[in-house]
Amino acid sequence: MSVSDHIDGYGAVVPYRGVNTRVPGAGGVPAFGAPRPLKTPGQCKLLRSLEDAITASGLKSGMTVSFHHHLRNGDKVVNSVLDACARMGIEGLTLFPTALFDVHEPVAEHVRRGVVRQIMGSVNGAVGRMVSTEARELAPVVLRSHGGRPRAIAAGEVHIDVAFIAAPAADGAGNLSGRFGPSACGSLGYPQVDAMYADRVVAVTDNLMPVMPAPVSIPQIYTDFVVEVPSIGDPAGIVSGTTAVTRNPLRLLISRYAARVIELAPCFANGLSFQTGAGGITLAVTAFLREAMAAKGIKGGFGLGGITGYFVEMLRDGLLERLLDVQSFDAAAVKSLGGGSGEQNSAHVEISADWYANPWNAGAAVNGLDAVVLGATEIDRDFNVNVNTEADGTLLHGIGGHQDTAAGAGITIIAQPLLRGRAPCVVERVDCVTTPGDVVDVLVTEYGVTVNPNAPPPGSKKIWRGEILERVRAAGLPVVPMDALIDKAKAMSGPMSPIERTDRVAAVVEWRDGSVLDVVYAKSSKR
Amino acid sequence: MSVSDHIDGYGAVVPYRGVNTRVPGAGGVPAFGAPRPLKTPGQCKLLRSLEDAITASGLKSGMTVSFHHHLRNGDKVVNSVLDACARMGIEGLTLFPTALFDVHEPVAEHVRRGVVRQIMGSVNGAVGRMVSTEARELAPVVLRSHGGRPRAIAAGEVHIDVAFIAAPAADGAGNLSGRFGPSACGSLGYPQVDAMYADRVVAVTDNLMPVMPAPVSIPQIYTDFVVEVPSIGDPAGIVSGTTAVTRNPLRLLISRYAARVIELAPCFANGLSFQTGAGGITLAVTAFLREAMAAKGIKGGFGLGGITGYFVEMLRDGLLERLLDVQSFDAAAVKSLGGGSGEQNSAHVEISADWYANPWNAGAAVNGLDAVVLGATEIDRDFNVNVNTEADGTLLHGIGGHQDTAAGAGITIIAQPLLRGRAPCVVERVDCVTTPGDVVDVLVTEYGVTVNPNAPPPGSKKIWRGEILERVRAAGLPVVPMDALIDKAKAMSGPMSPIERTDRVAAVVEWRDGSVLDVVYAKSSKR
Repeated sequence: MSVSDHIDGYGAVVPYRGVNTRVPGAGGVPAFGAPRPLKTPGQCKLLRSLEDAITASGLKSGMTVSFHHHLRNGDKVVNSVLDACARMGIEGLTLFPTALFDVHEPVAEHVRRGVVRQIMGSVNGAVGRMVSTEARELAPVVLRSHGGRPRAIAAGEVHIDVAFIAAPAADGAGNLSGRFGPSACGSLGYPQVDAMYADRVVAVTDNLMPVMPAPVSIPQIYTDFVVEVPSIGDPAGIVSGTTAVTRNPLRLLISRYAARVIELAPCFANGLSFQTGAGGITLAVTAFLREAMAAKGIKGGFGLGGITGYFVEMLRDGLLERLLDVQSFDAAAVKSLGGGSGEQNSAHVEISADWYANPWNAGAAVNGLDAVVLGATEIDRDFNVNVNTEADGTLLHGIGGHQDTAAGAGITIIAQPLLRGRAPCVVERVDCVTTPGDVVDVLVTEYGVTVNPNAPPPGSKKIWRGEILERVRAAGLPVVPMDALIDKAKAMSGPMSPIERTDRVAAVVEWRDGSVLDVVYAKSSKR
Repeated sequence: MSVSDHIDGYGAVVPYRGVNTRVPGAGGVPAFGAPRPLKTPGQCKLLRSLEDAITASGLKSGMTVSFHHHLRNGDKVVNSVLDACARMGIEGLTLFPTALFDVHEPVAEHVRRGVVRQIMGSVNGAVGRMVSTEARELAPVVLRSHGGRPRAIAAGEVHIDVAFIAAPAADGAGNLSGRFGPSACGSLGYPQVDAMYADRVVAVTDNLMPVMPAPVSIPQIYTDFVVEVPSIGDPAGIVSGTTAVTRNPLRLLISRYAARVIELAPCFANGLSFQTGAGGITLAVTAFLREAMAAKGIKGGFGLGGITGYFVEMLRDGLLERLLDVQSFDAAAVKSLGGGSGEQNSAHVEISADWYANPWNAGAAVNGLDAVVLGATEIDRDFNVNVNTEADGTLLHGIGGHQDTAAGAGITIIAQPLLRGRAPCVVERVDCVTTPGDVVDVLVTEYGVTVNPNAPPPGSKKIWRGEILERVRAAGLPVVPMDALIDKAKAMSGPMSPIERTDRVAAVVEWRDGSVLDVVYAKSSKR
């Protein structure tokens, strides 16, 4: 967490000074954000090809292009647009996706050829590996949370020249929806701010509707051009079946502890609003919480985040009042949001990334969270969490909503095993700080509950950590101090060989307010 | 239409140069609009009184406050806020409502006392009369269309210090909806841009919900404060029963001619999208069109504008695919939009004023209109239309969507009788130009059809007027030249006494692009 004043290819660094310190209108941060482009409507927005759209949008070498990741590992639009740019001789682009996945491995070739000069966005899997080990010509990747990204756009810290929006449904006027068509993905929450602030917006669709899609995710007033292509995504990679609840007994134990901690917290009452995510452990937490809520007759408030069929069932069964959906994780979520057959549940609400998590609007949804259960690749003595790099130091994951929900929730629980394979997950010092320990209240492992002994940051609505500890003890749950966990992890893993690093900054980790938390150094390409 | 370079209390005048001439990024108009305020969320948005909200919002003398008119002649919020400001010693305010009605007559007293220094917005009835005849201390009222207003906000031509939003439903997080509660009004389309651009947003509600209203009209990310008051509106004045179709045979004849003109136009085919408004004549046009569509098996595209039960029925009966609702005119429209009992029809879509009509976004809904039927108080030889002043020269009406729909539609029809009472409605020169004749295609009176012989403005998608004339003739409808109409009106009305004017500019009429079309001079207070 010691970062220099300036990082080549990133620029001047605003150092991280605490979770609630960088705010608009103080300390050199302007009170007003980016102006928005004014447009003059053309008579017809329909263009015949991506090349035509690139030309019409005025896209040139050196510009910034944005994408969203609702099509996940099924997305075809990022690759198609970059291929078209390459064919047209455009180079030096800054790629500003919400996230890239394995399917975007061809980006590596565009980096080598100079078509792409910088990536700002989550780099998962193959693209992360490329950034970590090769790609010397690439400027440092800028990692932002789901809330930090719309904040940076709205504040004018990132200017989007052209936003390319993969649209599962679109009409000729440029009304876009994620709900309908062969590439349906449900919520289209991520690109909404891009659509509002980009100089030019190109919708790419494989489902050009003769009638306006309704409900609309992004209205026509932001869309300059619409291009129809044969396919924007591979359904197999877009909406996977719901991740199954873990059956691993050790992971189930962790889930049970995490659910118990929430049950013991003062927020476990009518109106309980929470996010639990779509991993095996966190899904099991949802299942346990559901049982507990039903048993005690508790009706929750809202379920937030990436929405799964588990949340949809809780809504249907009256255990939740609302679902706020920035990303629909499975077919049940798409259907509940109104995809296809008109079974729309109006209590299931599509929200933008801005609404989800931006710290500089008048209050994001994460601020209303009572509890969140999150994963980690590592957590350290100060409760700092790393979700970006794996044990071998490779950058493999984005920040997602980790920072935002951790900062917003009344109680933030990290649920993870002590080790993954042979690698310890509880360590002296994390390789990379994704989320500062200040906003992490509780760690749950298979050995029990570890409560952060430090006071929460000023200005947060965190519940009193001493109270949690007392209640957990009184309930007879095993309580483990951090020291003991670290020692145990060390003993079990045995000595780990240090990660070999170069001095090249591969990625910069921004806190959701735009200050810099940490950097990820590139690995030696030969180990 | 000859306006000076500068108007005291208004400032430098951008003269009107044609319907499609003032555009962003050319002729001194910036390509980018207003920056948006960045905010830091407070922990609790709920305040106990309007006074507390005024204090918290930082509202001071000389600032600009905005309001919306979805509660129409039942609104209690404008008066309450101004009363509170008066009590708190705040003065010199610029009032920026979408529209004021008879119920806002107390504004006159606030003008006399100096609480209000300027009004920018539609002034109907009593307030218009006050502006026309008294109120020497008031700066000229600025009249903007429904599209011109959000354009002016987004472009930074009007800066809103504090937006007060009457919210029929709100939660503590600041999510607002017009659909629920004792003061339900349906669509909350007008204040959406205000919410996005105002420095501070105060929601005033009489229906504080423990759960987020869904669907949400204005999300929490824009709302700074929420104040609960006993009542924001008088239901009797908010959603009136639907205006009845006219039974007056003369008016029915006009309606039939207007409907016939649309039937004869090339756009009378599947996908026909139109706006007909909620007046007696225009409702009858809807009824006639409906018959004609059903008879020929035509399925329309979208119905636009202020939505009535007539449009709702057409949607239900499959004669329209979509309703785009910027303002719900009756209880049937509120219900169809999802008010109350969950009968939401997802094909009935709430849209913002920006989406409805802003000429400087990427394409407003009005641009998709095939046909619009509008009223007028006067129309002249050049087809210029006046809807602002009455025969006696009093300012009694706002522009509404008149300019926007007239400019956007493929065929714009003015439907009105030749005289109203003794006053001629077809004249040599209108008292005040609300909508330039360039964008008016056809006038329909009880004497028949009068087609504008001039070419449509360049860059518009107006259908060929010669073609209309031919088809109308071929169909055997009576065709009347403008000359003949003016003469006939003159003969029937007899000599009219000229309107006595002072040289005080009471109101400035902006074209939707912000250029100045005309001014309204104050009347002599003694006549």
